[in-house]
Amino acid sequence: MVNFPEPISQLIDGFMKLPGIGPKTAQRLAFHVLRMPDEDVLHLSQALAAVKKDLRYCRICCNITDVDPCTICRDELRDHRVICVVQDPRDVAAMERTREYHGVYHVLHGAISPMEGIGPEDIRVKELLERMKNDLPKELILATNPTVEGEATAMFLTRLVKPLGVKVTRIARGLPMGGDLEYADELTLSQALEGRREI
Amino acid sequence: MVNFPEPISQLIDGFMKLPGIGPKTAQRLAFHVLRMPDEDVLHLSQALAAVKKDLRYCRICCNITDVDPCTICRDELRDHRVICVVQDPRDVAAMERTREYHGVYHVLHGAISPMEGIGPEDIRVKELLERMKNDLPKELILATNPTVEGEATAMFLTRLVKPLGVKVTRIARGLPMGGDLEYADELTLSQALEGRREI
Repeated sequence: MVNFPEPISQLIDGFMKLPGIGPKTAQRLAFHVLRMPDEDVLHLSQALAAVKKDLRYCRICCNITDVDPCTICRDELRDHRVICVVQDPRDVAAMERTREYHGVYHVLHGAISPMEGIGPEDIRVKELLERMKNDLPKELILATNPTVEGEATAMFLTRLVKPLGVKVTRIARGLPMGGDLEYADELTLSQALEGRREI
Repeated sequence: MVNFPEPISQLIDGFMKLPGIGPKTAQRLAFHVLRMPDEDVLHLSQALAAVKKDLRYCRICCNITDVDPCTICRDELRDHRVICVVQDPRDVAAMERTREYHGVYHVLHGAISPMEGIGPEDIRVKELLERMKNDLPKELILATNPTVEGEATAMFLTRLVKPLGVKVTRIARGLPMGGDLEYADELTLSQALEGRREI
């Protein structure tokens, strides 16, 4: 990196802080930026600064938001007695895209993973309990990922919340739409079988 | 993208302007930025703004620089009568890393490519001729890439400059160091054979 002018070296260093971007890609990106229109670069620069300045966590659901409480938690047309628990803000976006869910959310920002040393105190479990203390929900939908960590988290939350008398449900696991039985892994297939319903 | 707060959507849009970054990667990067330390994000934001503000082209060699003329063109210890012609500012960095070259450079910012509609007037050929008009160099080293475009550019420059009585040389093409004869493509091998030298 020795021979680049200082502003380029700085930009390369900056890009290398992003995930999956090594020295070569960072160099390529930096030199691309030099050829980009001024307004595009300025826009990215300002968006980066703004994202840190303007975003916070919703005090109710812990989702990332620019208004607190977030637009979902403020929405009076939604059912605030149904809470869908997800791992990540992107999961909220995915759920919203279905246009089928009209309750509210709780974002854990992670899942329990003993392997990575992530315990219940490292994700937003405390906030979930705090929020339920005042007003017990009708239903708690556990929509953590169908992975080892997601299942462990769902299990943990079930044990914690069920004694309070709350209805706890877990999203269905089964064959994905458009999937092919022949190519399904046995775990998914056994889950699909187990979750079969009368039609 | 509908359901992200505005600052995140803006950042995702910004990242998507970078090469090789689609919507999914842009989303991943944006959410990573949210978890990055404030100072790292601010650094990247400022580096982006600075790169456009502080960089210009060296009036002599057309390299990208923060001081004009660039540090290489200003360096009185270098041989200003030997000019190495390269396609890209990164090629200057590569040459400098060898620590073997003590002349100066000329950066074309591209290569002639009829396929892509890039002619001699689209790269910094005019600037090279202008610069040689005042002071004919002792040697012009053509270090454009050993690709169709790089070879065409070298050929074009040779025909243009040689009549002026300048010694024009082309960097050697042959087997890369650490390379394996068995795996060399036939073009490289035939170039290596043609360029053989007595030892």
